[in-house]
Amino acid sequence: MSSPLVSDAGAAADAPQGAVPETARGGNLGVLLRLLHRHGPLSRSELADRMAVNRSTILGLTARLAAAGLVREEPATATGRAGRPSRLVCPERDRAYVLAFDVAVDRLVAARVGLGGAVLERRETVRRRRYPDLDEVVGVLAGFGGALVDAAPRAAGCVGVGASFCGLVRAADGMVRLAPNMGWADLDFGPALGRRLGLGLPVAVGNEAHLGALAEYERGAGAGSRNLVYLHGDVGVGGGVIVGGRLLDGDDGYGAELGHMIVNPHGGRPCNCGSRGCLEAEVGEAALLEAAGRAGGPVGRDGVRAVVDAAAAGDATARQALDRAGDWLGIGAVNLINLFNPGAMVFGGVLSEIYRGAAARIHARVDAGSLPVSRERVELRTAALGEDSCLSGAAELAFAPLLCDPLGVLERRPRQLGEGSA
Amino acid sequence: MSSPLVSDAGAAADAPQGAVPETARGGNLGVLLRLLHRHGPLSRSELADRMAVNRSTILGLTARLAAAGLVREEPATATGRAGRPSRLVCPERDRAYVLAFDVAVDRLVAARVGLGGAVLERRETVRRRRYPDLDEVVGVLAGFGGALVDAAPRAAGCVGVGASFCGLVRAADGMVRLAPNMGWADLDFGPALGRRLGLGLPVAVGNEAHLGALAEYERGAGAGSRNLVYLHGDVGVGGGVIVGGRLLDGDDGYGAELGHMIVNPHGGRPCNCGSRGCLEAEVGEAALLEAAGRAGGPVGRDGVRAVVDAAAAGDATARQALDRAGDWLGIGAVNLINLFNPGAMVFGGVLSEIYRGAAARIHARVDAGSLPVSRERVELRTAALGEDSCLSGAAELAFAPLLCDPLGVLERRPRQLGEGSA
Repeated sequence: MSSPLVSDAGAAADAPQGAVPETARGGNLGVLLRLLHRHGPLSRSELADRMAVNRSTILGLTARLAAAGLVREEPATATGRAGRPSRLVCPERDRAYVLAFDVAVDRLVAARVGLGGAVLERRETVRRRRYPDLDEVVGVLAGFGGALVDAAPRAAGCVGVGASFCGLVRAADGMVRLAPNMGWADLDFGPALGRRLGLGLPVAVGNEAHLGALAEYERGAGAGSRNLVYLHGDVGVGGGVIVGGRLLDGDDGYGAELGHMIVNPHGGRPCNCGSRGCLEAEVGEAALLEAAGRAGGPVGRDGVRAVVDAAAAGDATARQALDRAGDWLGIGAVNLINLFNPGAMVFGGVLSEIYRGAAARIHARVDAGSLPVSRERVELRTAALGEDSCLSGAAELAFAPLLCDPLGVLERRPRQLGEGSA
Repeated sequence: MSSPLVSDAGAAADAPQGAVPETARGGNLGVLLRLLHRHGPLSRSELADRMAVNRSTILGLTARLAAAGLVREEPATATGRAGRPSRLVCPERDRAYVLAFDVAVDRLVAARVGLGGAVLERRETVRRRRYPDLDEVVGVLAGFGGALVDAAPRAAGCVGVGASFCGLVRAADGMVRLAPNMGWADLDFGPALGRRLGLGLPVAVGNEAHLGALAEYERGAGAGSRNLVYLHGDVGVGGGVIVGGRLLDGDDGYGAELGHMIVNPHGGRPCNCGSRGCLEAEVGEAALLEAAGRAGGPVGRDGVRAVVDAAAAGDATARQALDRAGDWLGIGAVNLINLFNPGAMVFGGVLSEIYRGAAARIHARVDAGSLPVSRERVELRTAALGEDSCLSGAAELAFAPLLCDPLGVLERRPRQLGEGSA
């Protein structure tokens, strides 16, 4: 088979790039590829059903995507339906991949992720210094990235790059505006990583909780709901929201700062952001451990789990601390349910532990305070994805242009080092 | 010219309807028509620039839309550019129209709105009974609607029906779930109005504050921003949010209940929803008038304006009441800015009066409590559209399918009474 992923670069589209609304390009090709990326192999007839087009349309779309090296067809499995068995269409996970990065509070991760979402190869290191500089972080990540590209099969091509970052990120250009945990402000992380990688591809950068939400929506606890609220706790409380199937990012990418919703304006605890009574200040790890009389002890998931375990074993102080956290988390949940009418509300990181320890309290608050119609179908859940949820979200960010306009992205894709010609 | 708006009905598309994602249909035809609907007549070259396609593409798209009766071309005005002057493409406002309805707290309104957004004809009545029944409301509106259709020019065709409703509305089917001001719960308003109109068109129904937000976004104080928060006060406090250019409605249509965000959980005023310390309870008209010692006096805009005027004239009680409302409105604004990173935050109804009277207080709260990156570009504004903002939003709702898939909507459109053949 020829290798059209390594197509003639510079086959320019007949129009300038960038300004076309996403409705105008890609169309059904993108819709079909997105279905395969999200759900895995589907039969032609399943695709026809889900897209509400006829099978000859599917045949044509599949042929174009197969010629571009993005999908392949496999012999059918029996369907139980009348008529000829329908051939299975599969995403070519070993031919089209993205690089995904995660700059987390405690570690740096890079992975090669195939079309369809599987992590094909992965590199990780703990962050050695509390406050590393831009050059150091970019150097480590670009080294990982280069090694992952070099180790990829010859027929495989990188179609996008995405990164998750533990701070406030400007969506337009990947500038890190503020990352207290890194000691960073206004550093051009995305462009710097792109230059150092040297793949000729831009790096799409997103806030870690946004991308955690995206991952839970695509492949985790939110699957099946078009509207999802994700609340994540580690050192602080972050959030991500999916509205109508799309990530809420706001005008500049700073949206969904759910941890900085003021719930206790009078007498609330001071927050790291400089305000008072924010959700983060009331339900974050620090507030819980302090209320449980455990400030100075173990922190993170271990510290929070210890409080939950102690409460379960009858420790009254731990129980009170958890009840307090549950009340505030419940009030936060009331507001988010009334604002977003979501199908799922997902608690991640240490908040998943707090949810487990205070679920009854949280549900009582939700029942008392949220609008009946808004809560009637919402499900409260803990996150389904583990530590790689942000990495998975970064991969989704990197795949997004391909899934919007598959052939356009391939046409515009620069030829990469190490790739042969067709 | 023939009259293709009155096309052969039943020219079925080759696929079942309803399941196709909006990216898959209409494409550039919809993008072009939407630009004209929103901005009015544009030259071919302006369209080419905005859509980032070449002029021959525009020529083809325009020809198809003109053949369908949706646009017409007019001689160019001088552009100042080199080359031939570019012809002007205009939406056919007198040929394609929608019916828009508004069921408000105090009145019933119906209008015929042309492509491009102009109200072409309008009927209105005050609501006579406090708690009218479904049949009465639907009867009045359908009577108005029938008269508007009858009075339309022979070449004009109705391409959609939308309604704004002062209550919680299920988006999927136009069921009114709760409307305390009407005494309604679980009444199938949308389907009943559709049946009574007898046009063979579904009625898209939306919450009034959602549609107010949509109208401010399309044609009012939010123009130019992809993310907008609209807070509206009348008897209660409602809200609408535009996220990335789309109305936030949630899984069932109940989203953006900004008035029921709890901001004062301990010691807050009881709210009509049964909870306590909701934004509505703290900043609504009733709270302001009570704090100003004017409970029992004039209500609505007149009552609120009197407080603002008194404060400006030196009345200390009125000033304190306004400061109090400003503080709570400011805390609400902090949360909404941190959650949505909007380009514009718009205050409508009585809240526009409160904003005028307490702007400094509100801005001080926003500066103290919101994240610097999230507030750096947001503009706080009062609503630009008057009493017809919900009606205008209902018209946008009605036009939405046509602007997504212009030819598809016309193909599926039933022939209406009174329309001649081509």
